[in-house]
Amino acid sequence: MNTFALLHRSKSEMAYAYDNETLHLWLRTQKDDFNQVKLVYGDPFRYEPIDEKQIHWAWKHENASDLVMTKKMSDHVFDYYFIAIKPIHKRVKYAFILDDTYLYGAREIYDLREDHDKKKKYNLFNYFNFPFINEVDVIKIPTWVKETVWYEIFPDRFNRSTDAKNTITHAWGNPKEEVTNQMIFGGNIKGIIEKLDYLVDLGITGIYFTPLFEADSTHKYDTIDYFKIDPSFGTNDDFKRLVDESHKRGIKVVLDAVFNHCGYDHPYFQDVIKHGKNSPYFDCFFVKDEPLLNFKLNENKRPIYQPGLVPNYHTFAFTPYMPKWNTENPIARKHLLDAAAYWIKEYDIDGWRLDVSNEVSHDFWRAFRNTVISAKKDAFIFGENWDYSMPWLQGDQFDSVMNYELIYPIWQFFGHDPYVPKIKASQFVFLINKLYASYPRQILEAMFNLVDSHDTARILDRSLENTDLAYLAYLFMFSFPGTPTIYYGGEVALTGKGDPDNRRCMTWDENDQNLDFKARIKQLIRLKKEDTTFKSSDIEFVYHNDDQQVIVYKKISDFEVTYFFLNASNQTQVVSLDFNIEGHCLLNDHLISDDQFTLKPFGSLIIKQSTK
Amino acid sequence: MNTFALLHRSKSEMAYAYDNETLHLWLRTQKDDFNQVKLVYGDPFRYEPIDEKQIHWAWKHENASDLVMTKKMSDHVFDYYFIAIKPIHKRVKYAFILDDTYLYGAREIYDLREDHDKKKKYNLFNYFNFPFINEVDVIKIPTWVKETVWYEIFPDRFNRSTDAKNTITHAWGNPKEEVTNQMIFGGNIKGIIEKLDYLVDLGITGIYFTPLFEADSTHKYDTIDYFKIDPSFGTNDDFKRLVDESHKRGIKVVLDAVFNHCGYDHPYFQDVIKHGKNSPYFDCFFVKDEPLLNFKLNENKRPIYQPGLVPNYHTFAFTPYMPKWNTENPIARKHLLDAAAYWIKEYDIDGWRLDVSNEVSHDFWRAFRNTVISAKKDAFIFGENWDYSMPWLQGDQFDSVMNYELIYPIWQFFGHDPYVPKIKASQFVFLINKLYASYPRQILEAMFNLVDSHDTARILDRSLENTDLAYLAYLFMFSFPGTPTIYYGGEVALTGKGDPDNRRCMTWDENDQNLDFKARIKQLIRLKKEDTTFKSSDIEFVYHNDDQQVIVYKKISDFEVTYFFLNASNQTQVVSLDFNIEGHCLLNDHLISDDQFTLKPFGSLIIKQSTK
Repeated sequence: MNTFALLHRSKSEMAYAYDNETLHLWLRTQKDDFNQVKLVYGDPFRYEPIDEKQIHWAWKHENASDLVMTKKMSDHVFDYYFIAIKPIHKRVKYAFILDDTYLYGAREIYDLREDHDKKKKYNLFNYFNFPFINEVDVIKIPTWVKETVWYEIFPDRFNRSTDAKNTITHAWGNPKEEVTNQMIFGGNIKGIIEKLDYLVDLGITGIYFTPLFEADSTHKYDTIDYFKIDPSFGTNDDFKRLVDESHKRGIKVVLDAVFNHCGYDHPYFQDVIKHGKNSPYFDCFFVKDEPLLNFKLNENKRPIYQPGLVPNYHTFAFTPYMPKWNTENPIARKHLLDAAAYWIKEYDIDGWRLDVSNEVSHDFWRAFRNTVISAKKDAFIFGENWDYSMPWLQGDQFDSVMNYELIYPIWQFFGHDPYVPKIKASQFVFLINKLYASYPRQILEAMFNLVDSHDTARILDRSLENTDLAYLAYLFMFSFPGTPTIYYGGEVALTGKGDPDNRRCMTWDENDQNLDFKARIKQLIRLKKEDTTFKSSDIEFVYHNDDQQVIVYKKISDFEVTYFFLNASNQTQVVSLDFNIEGHCLLNDHLISDDQFTLKPFGSLIIKQSTK
Repeated sequence: MNTFALLHRSKSEMAYAYDNETLHLWLRTQKDDFNQVKLVYGDPFRYEPIDEKQIHWAWKHENASDLVMTKKMSDHVFDYYFIAIKPIHKRVKYAFILDDTYLYGAREIYDLREDHDKKKKYNLFNYFNFPFINEVDVIKIPTWVKETVWYEIFPDRFNRSTDAKNTITHAWGNPKEEVTNQMIFGGNIKGIIEKLDYLVDLGITGIYFTPLFEADSTHKYDTIDYFKIDPSFGTNDDFKRLVDESHKRGIKVVLDAVFNHCGYDHPYFQDVIKHGKNSPYFDCFFVKDEPLLNFKLNENKRPIYQPGLVPNYHTFAFTPYMPKWNTENPIARKHLLDAAAYWIKEYDIDGWRLDVSNEVSHDFWRAFRNTVISAKKDAFIFGENWDYSMPWLQGDQFDSVMNYELIYPIWQFFGHDPYVPKIKASQFVFLINKLYASYPRQILEAMFNLVDSHDTARILDRSLENTDLAYLAYLFMFSFPGTPTIYYGGEVALTGKGDPDNRRCMTWDENDQNLDFKARIKQLIRLKKEDTTFKSSDIEFVYHNDDQQVIVYKKISDFEVTYFFLNASNQTQVVSLDFNIEGHCLLNDHLISDDQFTLKPFGSLIIKQSTK
């Protein structure tokens, strides 16, 4: 037994309430260390008579038969055992029995055979405690979220309405040089409305917009006015119509909450520039030293950035264009929370994506959540966080995050990037399994999954422009628990390297669209919405081969099982399973009964097992 | 290298802001696995040129010299390395370098020697992230707390005023049989006021009262009226005078918030009994089935308890006398939060101890904290929690908890109890070290430390009535980080087995008090308040011997070092250190210069090292 590998923490992602009745429990052990892991538990306050004089704690009054845990996930060094239980009185003390020999408890691991007088067994001292399932603490995410297929839109580059008169620097889709963040192509809200039916046809049910509020830059992450749509995109009324037209079509609308920082030209910051400590807004920012502006300005009185600059006020990264908000200041806090409520109450948006969410205080996000949920009970809140995010996902801050923990393995296995080291099939399986075991199930089911975004190279670029390989990344995302996202144009094989090249204009000429690819993505969207196994969060890898770079996993719903075969290599691969699959190919309805399967280079196979 | 043993989690008790400038970082490794552990870190957004064309992330721009971590704590299998850093821009990406050979990061451990092109080194992907120190998230506990020496009073048994006329069942301190929870000895608030000068003389600066509000039982954990002092103890005005007189004497007052449940006779619950679903209070409780009262009543219409009973409403344990509050119900919530604010605003109490705090929702405690802190900015909130409590100690709920994680090793090493297995000196040292590394420092410093309480056998009983052994338990508690507590009478060697025997009447006749013991406790109180090393939270074990059952540790303050020798065995023990200590004995001022020390059975020695 490797005791170093054993890990359990109560009231964590390893022991949480899935709903008001059900506890999910995970135990980590060294891989293949045990043949069997059991759970023992009882009500903390239930005692039973031993004889006429003595009583002892009744660890088993609720489960006379043994509760064997399932080895649900494994990575390269650990196994993750799982069990779901429903404690009658909503409270439970528990421990784990390893190979019927050792008890792993909150304070000690011991050999049951040496506990002759059962003093240890009946000592509550060494049991893990889940004191009570309080319904309000159960992490609940609006049910619509997990049924959503997202589309991310970068507004300047999605579509320009035919009647648009806003200023542009370049004609649509035709830059003479590579696209930059200085170019303006004039995409606008009316243009988006014109394309809502395109999104409906694709199957989209939610749109996440990068910032729409008034700002200096093209990307608009430097907000000037949190209550006003940027004039180049349209008016607030245009936006109202966009939300209404989206809702009519069953599409939810989520905006980008850039609340970590504002733009240099935000009036509060400009007031501080003008009046210094005499400004009522001075404390809305973090001024570190004088002079406030320790850099030169250009002819438009805006900062000239130089590498190595450290502004005398806290900023996003080191850019002087983005002064960081002090969200503890009551004026700043009210300003931002008012904006959070305003777009819900006045324009009926359905949620917020939180920019640079990990640098803003937890305290602010708790207040933000209260504000948002008061305005709309089933609003969805998800953070940008790029790292493991449980500290933000306790039910009091975000519902979920952009799932960069998923995107990394996808890039590493299906992509090619000098700074994203390539991994083998086994590593992919292990990373995914580890990820699966690292979040409560309901959060996993509501994760904002993605293969690329406005902040990353596009998946087609990472796949070296191979659409079959890029398709595998999408297929994996669509079949994994969570909500899939398409970054605008991904469906027609729009490509692009990292920012700013990932923000090319959407291709609307069907001659330039990859319609075959679009048909395949559309099929995935349909399956995610209709197929019970695609929708299920129950996933299990059944095969992987590092020489082949092939993975095979199954998804299980209440009534069906579907097998997914993905070949990430550029060679034909033959997969021999140690069991037979009888069913039909989900994509072309061919009947199959075999234990051997041939996969084309970068090919895939989805087989729905026949129901018995 | 044992990779199974490596553990670090960012934004946890292993990586937290100690103050607005300082991060504390801990790394767990297998014991003795490495000769040296270093930290590397940099600002997440700071890049440096490699050559004219390339830049890379600058992990060391803030620390040109190596940052060697301190092996601060060890238990039987792990070492815990520590370092404090002050990142200039309040944000940091970091990793650990093991023996100058391996880098342990957020996603991977790798051999630095194999990273020839430094692609891994400059890939931010694998660094732990502390995104930003936001001041509001820094866990701050009122400064008065860590300077407090507590006294716990069980009101019916502490002192009865000379003019008291309240009903009693037994004369003070003279039951004909063993004390029970049915006996009433008539202790009251006036009686407590009469003894405040006694507490001042002892050195007490804070009192925690078990419940004072109107209730049926002697222990009053079955509240009937949250806004009224129990008439047997006095009036609300008497209590006002108690707080005022305590404050005049520099003594803080903390009350018991019994908000998990109320008493059977609480009017809301009685209304539910009477009107069932038609009661406006029906949803203030968790009614599970009909009939509500699935048990018999006695002649006073109160429940008759029988073993095995499961009331048809959620209760504390299975007792029908204590219906559990549904704190999500707005009426119940307002009622309890109003009480929380009332006793602060009207009576100026200084904080709340939270009964059965782990069974109440986190959501309620967050609202409770907001209410309490709004009423009194420097109020102190601590929970009853008996288990590891970080989920409640994120800064949004409690300041600290009753430190049962400390009391267990104290009982196990200094006590004797058939259900608290005896441990050796090494185990004691390891458990204490592990505990030290398991909470943020500022929480450790504000823990409500104790050796016994109204819920446990008294320490003198656990020490088999040996005052020298009991003294060692107190000495350890007083010298360990956190705030020490004396359960009334402990200072004069009052004894008692578990509840109800631990609630005997206080002994006021000096002939029955152990005045020698009291003098020793008084001395510890004085040292805790005056001596910089007693006050310091910097503790390090320098010697332990399982055959001797001896431990030696040092406490370090900015200017001084003090050594503590504790012999938990009933034999004389000779301790040979591998270094010389020059100083004076703190308790009798004897000069000492030696590396060998003789300890009497259950003896101790406290040596303050001479300053150079």
